[in-house]
Amino acid sequence: MKRLALLALTLLAGCATAPAPTAASSSTPAAAPQVPATMQWMYGSGESGASSIQAYHAFRDHVLAAARSRPVESVVLAEGATLAAPRFIPCGDRTLAVVLDVDETAIQNLGYEYDEALRGRSYDEGIWARWEQTGGNAVLPMPGAVTALRAVRAAGVTVIFNSNRVSAYAAQTAAAIEGAGLGPARHRETLWLKGDVGAGSAKDPRRAAISERHCVIAMAGDQLGDFSDLFNVRELSLPDRRRAATSGRFAQMWGNGWFLLSNPVYGPGIRGGFDDVFPADRRWTDPGAGH
Amino acid sequence: MKRLALLALTLLAGCATAPAPTAASSSTPAAAPQVPATMQWMYGSGESGASSIQAYHAFRDHVLAAARSRPVESVVLAEGATLAAPRFIPCGDRTLAVVLDVDETAIQNLGYEYDEALRGRSYDEGIWARWEQTGGNAVLPMPGAVTALRAVRAAGVTVIFNSNRVSAYAAQTAAAIEGAGLGPARHRETLWLKGDVGAGSAKDPRRAAISERHCVIAMAGDQLGDFSDLFNVRELSLPDRRRAATSGRFAQMWGNGWFLLSNPVYGPGIRGGFDDVFPADRRWTDPGAGH
Repeated sequence: MKRLALLALTLLAGCATAPAPTAASSSTPAAAPQVPATMQWMYGSGESGASSIQAYHAFRDHVLAAARSRPVESVVLAEGATLAAPRFIPCGDRTLAVVLDVDETAIQNLGYEYDEALRGRSYDEGIWARWEQTGGNAVLPMPGAVTALRAVRAAGVTVIFNSNRVSAYAAQTAAAIEGAGLGPARHRETLWLKGDVGAGSAKDPRRAAISERHCVIAMAGDQLGDFSDLFNVRELSLPDRRRAATSGRFAQMWGNGWFLLSNPVYGPGIRGGFDDVFPADRRWTDPGAGH
Repeated sequence: MKRLALLALTLLAGCATAPAPTAASSSTPAAAPQVPATMQWMYGSGESGASSIQAYHAFRDHVLAAARSRPVESVVLAEGATLAAPRFIPCGDRTLAVVLDVDETAIQNLGYEYDEALRGRSYDEGIWARWEQTGGNAVLPMPGAVTALRAVRAAGVTVIFNSNRVSAYAAQTAAAIEGAGLGPARHRETLWLKGDVGAGSAKDPRRAAISERHCVIAMAGDQLGDFSDLFNVRELSLPDRRRAATSGRFAQMWGNGWFLLSNPVYGPGIRGGFDDVFPADRRWTDPGAGH
């Protein structure tokens, strides 16, 4: 009986001291933090640096040409425009401007993404708020941005930032932009933030406010919402969203008034299952699988 | 004693029937195949479609302008050129051409990447070989490529593909290119493959062969090796590789003879640990962590 009791205790102890099966302990690669492939490409590769410079070269060339010719229409969609029937705000004699997003368009948020990768976490609103407040020195300009914005300003065109960073930290965001060599950025003049016009993340109201004083001849961003909120309508499926951006009038805009900075790290374009991402008629199964 | 023996058996049974802690069973999301973020961006997002169109607009505009002005120098580096001292092959009176990579530059390999994501596997040489042989219908052109190449050919400029697909499957690769609306592609005339000039993956020898008959006025690719093998030298650290591509003479090439298609899904730029990807002086630790 004593041995049996001992056995029972041993078994109990064995059960109790077995490490809890967590994802981290059961799979070695997950235990050590790794840099996600998206960030490797975005912040580490020469390819993404080249892509950014290429976008800013096209941006600069377009702006300098448009500044000489003074276009009749801006590149901001007019109120009432739809994906099926786009119309642009007329320029009148308003002063020329360009409108850029900030994060992963003008600056690389290296410090924030480092922290995210190191801790293996996903986006966190509270951490991002602290990043806006304290991270301004841990950024770099996007490759090509500094020289392009310098050329744009030298041509007499106003550089305006339109970001979903919050109005409350305008001073810190302006300091981050200026510290990266991309300034000046003055709140509600050349820096528009979430909370400045209405409360939400929609950027159309801010684009409308900017357009009251300026003829916007180019926009740059890493998300379709940096060009029009129409792309962020909830009912739009992922394939329809891609189709809208790459066909008809909008297809003509890329590199021709609208300038896209490639960012696979985050954003509303990075989602979807197999049916959203891979067209049903373009699939393939390895004929050698299982052999 | 009987109760104790029963307890021991119960404990044993409890231990024995507990599910084995594997990565798949302990974390539900890992069990079902998911589309990696890199593929979501690349094949599903409107942003990547826009980025591709933008690159092809710049490519087309550059080629049409260069075809009119007939440049003195090609955009192919001359033998003996280095990253520190780049020199380009003179054009002479050779006929004008452009040189494009194939995979994720001219075509999207949707079928192959679908199979890879569905099976949660990484790149496999054998599967890729079967893909080259049998996958030609499961591709789409990169957004903007068809209209750009049509305009380039209409301007009298020869379109040449330079790919690391293998010479043995030239017919299948030509069929994939032509099926996507990007042809014609004739082996060793307008389609150069691994094995055509030497045995390796280096593309410089093929670029040299192409340059014997053509003045190359633009190149397009998703990897730095699509422009020069100098970027693939093993001793080059990841930060030095990015620096080489984004400074000096090479920085000027992007959008100006060299055209980069963004591809975060695969390639030699997608690697590196924290020290490679995040500059030491641009790090940040959330001051609220642990509170």
